[in-house]
Amino acid sequence: MRISRFPVPPLESLPEDVRARIREVEEKAGFVPNVFRSLAHRPAEFRAFFAYHDALMQREGGLTKGEKEMIVVATSALNDCLYCVVAHGAILRVYEKKPLIADQVAVNYREADLTPRQRAMLDFAVKVATRSAEIDDRDFEVLRTHGFSEQDIWDIGAIAAFFAMSNRLASMMAMQPNEEFYLMGRVPKRRD
Amino acid sequence: MRISRFPVPPLESLPEDVRARIREVEEKAGFVPNVFRSLAHRPAEFRAFFAYHDALMQREGGLTKGEKEMIVVATSALNDCLYCVVAHGAILRVYEKKPLIADQVAVNYREADLTPRQRAMLDFAVKVATRSAEIDDRDFEVLRTHGFSEQDIWDIGAIAAFFAMSNRLASMMAMQPNEEFYLMGRVPKRRD
Amino acid sequence: MRISRFPVPPLESLPEDVRARIREVEEKAGFVPNVFRSLAHRPAEFRAFFAYHDALMQREGGLTKGEKEMIVVATSALNDCLYCVVAHGAILRVYEKKPLIADQVAVNYREADLTPRQRAMLDFAVKVATRSAEIDDRDFEVLRTHGFSEQDIWDIGAIAAFFAMSNRLASMMAMQPNEEFYLMGRVPKRRD
Amino acid sequence: MRISRFPVPPLESLPEDVRARIREVEEKAGFVPNVFRSLAHRPAEFRAFFAYHDALMQREGGLTKGEKEMIVVATSALNDCLYCVVAHGAILRVYEKKPLIADQVAVNYREADLTPRQRAMLDFAVKVATRSAEIDDRDFEVLRTHGFSEQDIWDIGAIAAFFAMSNRLASMMAMQPNEEFYLMGRVPKRRD
Amino acid sequence: MRISRFPVPPLESLPEDVRARIREVEEKAGFVPNVFRSLAHRPAEFRAFFAYHDALMQREGGLTKGEKEMIVVATSALNDCLYCVVAHGAILRVYEKKPLIADQVAVNYREADLTPRQRAMLDFAVKVATRSAEIDDRDFEVLRTHGFSEQDIWDIGAIAAFFAMSNRLASMMAMQPNEEFYLMGRVPKRRD
Amino acid sequence: MRISRFPVPPLESLPEDVRARIREVEEKAGFVPNVFRSLAHRPAEFRAFFAYHDALMQREGGLTKGEKEMIVVATSALNDCLYCVVAHGAILRVYEKKPLIADQVAVNYREADLTPRQRAMLDFAVKVATRSAEIDDRDFEVLRTHGFSEQDIWDIGAIAAFFAMSNRLASMMAMQPNEEFYLMGRVPKRRD
Repeated sequence: MRISRFPVPPLESLPEDVRARIREVEEKAGFVPNVFRSLAHRPAEFRAFFAYHDALMQREGGLTKGEKEMIVVATSALNDCLYCVVAHGAILRVYEKKPLIADQVAVNYREADLTPRQRAMLDFAVKVATRSAEIDDRDFEVLRTHGFSEQDIWDIGAIAAFFAMSNRLASMMAMQPNEEFYLMGRVPKRRD
Repeated sequence: MRISRFPVPPLESLPEDVRARIREVEEKAGFVPNVFRSLAHRPAEFRAFFAYHDALMQREGGLTKGEKEMIVVATSALNDCLYCVVAHGAILRVYEKKPLIADQVAVNYREADLTPRQRAMLDFAVKVATRSAEIDDRDFEVLRTHGFSEQDIWDIGAIAAFFAMSNRLASMMAMQPNEEFYLMGRVPKRRD
Repeated sequence: MRISRFPVPPLESLPEDVRARIREVEEKAGFVPNVFRSLAHRPAEFRAFFAYHDALMQREGGLTKGEKEMIVVATSALNDCLYCVVAHGAILRVYEKKPLIADQVAVNYREADLTPRQRAMLDFAVKVATRSAEIDDRDFEVLRTHGFSEQDIWDIGAIAAFFAMSNRLASMMAMQPNEEFYLMGRVPKRRD
Repeated sequence: MRISRFPVPPLESLPEDVRARIREVEEKAGFVPNVFRSLAHRPAEFRAFFAYHDALMQREGGLTKGEKEMIVVATSALNDCLYCVVAHGAILRVYEKKPLIADQVAVNYREADLTPRQRAMLDFAVKVATRSAEIDDRDFEVLRTHGFSEQDIWDIGAIAAFFAMSNRLASMMAMQPNEEFYLMGRVPKRRD
Repeated sequence: MRISRFPVPPLESLPEDVRARIREVEEKAGFVPNVFRSLAHRPAEFRAFFAYHDALMQREGGLTKGEKEMIVVATSALNDCLYCVVAHGAILRVYEKKPLIADQVAVNYREADLTPRQRAMLDFAVKVATRSAEIDDRDFEVLRTHGFSEQDIWDIGAIAAFFAMSNRLASMMAMQPNEEFYLMGRVPKRRD
Repeated sequence: MRISRFPVPPLESLPEDVRARIREVEEKAGFVPNVFRSLAHRPAEFRAFFAYHDALMQREGGLTKGEKEMIVVATSALNDCLYCVVAHGAILRVYEKKPLIADQVAVNYREADLTPRQRAMLDFAVKVATRSAEIDDRDFEVLRTHGFSEQDIWDIGAIAAFFAMSNRLASMMAMQPNEEFYLMGRVPKRRD
């Protein structure tokens, strides 16, 4: 299957900084995730997309890397985004070292093996993803009772917002996940 | 009213490049749109957000600047996003030099004074905004019959996707539009 | 653009009482709002419509004229009714002498500059407009805690119900607002 | 059970014209339908409501009286309005002399024993009731292919719109149907 | 009208046990409900369907037979299932000896003449029917405060689930209710 | 985590035929799927459930076993049913010998690697699952153009209907999938 409805330029045709970024992720992951190849036909947008992604996902704060990926998987599942659920499901399994967690969060996060704090985090992320106009001060109070700071709340909502964009781009492209993602993190001992 | 639920740092506390960007928009517009002040508490995200925004909105292509703003207003209205409807409604009026167009597109773009090509553009943008998982090849065929190129289609969808993010950030912040936006472009002779 | 999909008879062809009513509103407003011209092709319905409208909107009671218009704007926006949002938005600005209020209430009344009492009023009006079968006694209790009498509650719900009808008629006609409404009440000092 | 959440004044306390109207319906039907008693606490609205109702429902045109009641039952069922479904279901059975038709139209008009023309009529009425902002010229073309005139289309839409109001008033009141309505028209030979 | 879109085999062609079951219901009811004739073209599924139905509906427990039928009618109405609303509405009237109850529950169970316990039962049944993924422990607590045991809760949910299946089969078949059901239980003295 | 909110009786306490069925599946699968243990507290319902399941899923006809599981996975995903998506996703992978197919169908069957015939099959199954009251003769015509017989169409719809029930039971129980299902069929060479 085609990985995108839009042009996927050959790597050698890309600007040097874009190629460098792609080589970097390839060395780390062992393959080039299709989102890098699919967005590369628009270098300026590519740079902004990954700068934004990294600012949110690599920032140190009150959320663990696994918790950030829970937000991505739960909200992407509501948008039926194949690429984001499969790719970030893989990353979630790797970070959390729990081979079952991604499928649970993707199908119904209410029945996943989560702490009450993580459940509250996902309730807010889902509200940002699906009913953002109804957010009110009580939502913030609930999060504070679970120990989230103002900056943590920003992170939850901003990640949900960023993937609201990302899901729509992926669906517009019909972007396919790399095969590697489907199995990654499912057999913890032997593979990771 | 507060312009955001989150911190709004004083300008002098911001990194130099962020301040420069804010001074630049202030000189052009005559005031600082609140989105600049509201996002500034996270400089890395601020930089990525506006880099992304400019890459999409200032790119030369098959869509006019006014048409891009129609996409912003139509999709932001579906998300009930006060800031984006009011601020981009103002910009739409200015670009199109039509004082009625923004309210028409915001309330019901199906009844707005648009060309059939613009109507098809908004139908696709709205599908990206609200039902992106259902996008299929027939949607692309419809756009092509209206003369949109593959790159134009990307622009339509990517702008809708970017403001899916932007709307959610604005609602999370309860970001208020500057008063200036409400009247801008409504009295074309005297003000523009 | 045509002001209606249905016939718009010349004024001189109308029954005397219908013409008198139209002359009266023209003298007061300075122009004939299109709803008068669009409904006139059915004189019996015209008479009943405006009798009903006046009974609700001009009745003395616990709601101010501005508050009644807030109900019209908030519920008409949910129905994406171009005529009602633009025309009653204008009237709302004039009554409240607040040039920003109509756009706020139309886009997202939850973020508008309202009192808690007005917010509760609109929550109930919106429930009548969109989920009337779920109204229960607790909704009445909430309104009473904000000081609304039984007759006030009737007014809130009956106005929301009347515009549920009005919005549907306007959308069926594709009724266009007069240009005058778009700017009315936006520049309070010079124009009102 | 109470017939309304709001005051139901004794007949003798009502203005003479309101009482006359109620006596008239009582003589015709053999009992006073609760909608007359429930709306009487607001005489001006009572007069406008029934003037509007009669203008639409008693007007001569391309729709039979039974077809008009089909519109009422189908759209009131979508609004879960107990009074309107039960009372107008009874009237529908009486006019059509078909004891099964009202339940069919109320539960799922798509499976009711109707002509294709009646099915098209209800499809439009339901669109007016539930998605009026999406009405477009193609809806009118479909109705014209079934032989509906412009005035017939107005009747279909205006009846759906009027009961959009009526359903909301009834649900706000929790108005109960008279017991008589439940059985009326179900045993054609002996009762009608 | 055809009673099903699918084959309805003659009784004499059916396996002996299926015919016996049909004869049994005919003797009891005085006619063969169409669901028996419509499912008979698949004998193995016929047997399992009625075995399941009887296990749920004839089991002794904390719910009366009438209450079980309330669940069927309320949830089938939400699915717009003509056969189930009409046929089980009849059975509900017969069990409860209340000629009005079925129409009330079908149109809007919130306004029906029910006990608070029955209302809570239907709230849960409706959640199982329409939003089962959101069921949580608080739903169980509410039911327990109304005196429902764990086994009663199972019955409520399992009946709602069984008719989620049954409604879908009936709508796929466009299965028509027998005429007898429409009037059954409406004139208690003379007919039952 | 508990496998069900309801009682899970020890195997030795169960009726002999129920135990025999459970032993049979355990021998075949290597473990006892939780649905067998969770439904066993109601033996009569257990027997009917699995008799129905087997009648549908093991019947010879125009659908392959893999295609039947696609229906289960696609419709269960729409109901956010954790047990059914995970357990039947595993079975789908095993039957189709395609390790990626289950995740594709669960997240967005429109982007899965399917034939146009399978896509049409799932479109109908999804309509049965989510909008059964709107099924009409045109849906049957579309399926016939893809070569489905009347009996195949029954199978598609009846499987979607059966899992409408099954999903609701599973969510009411908060039934957890066995860990074995999550990995089954993902590493075809070594395990199958």
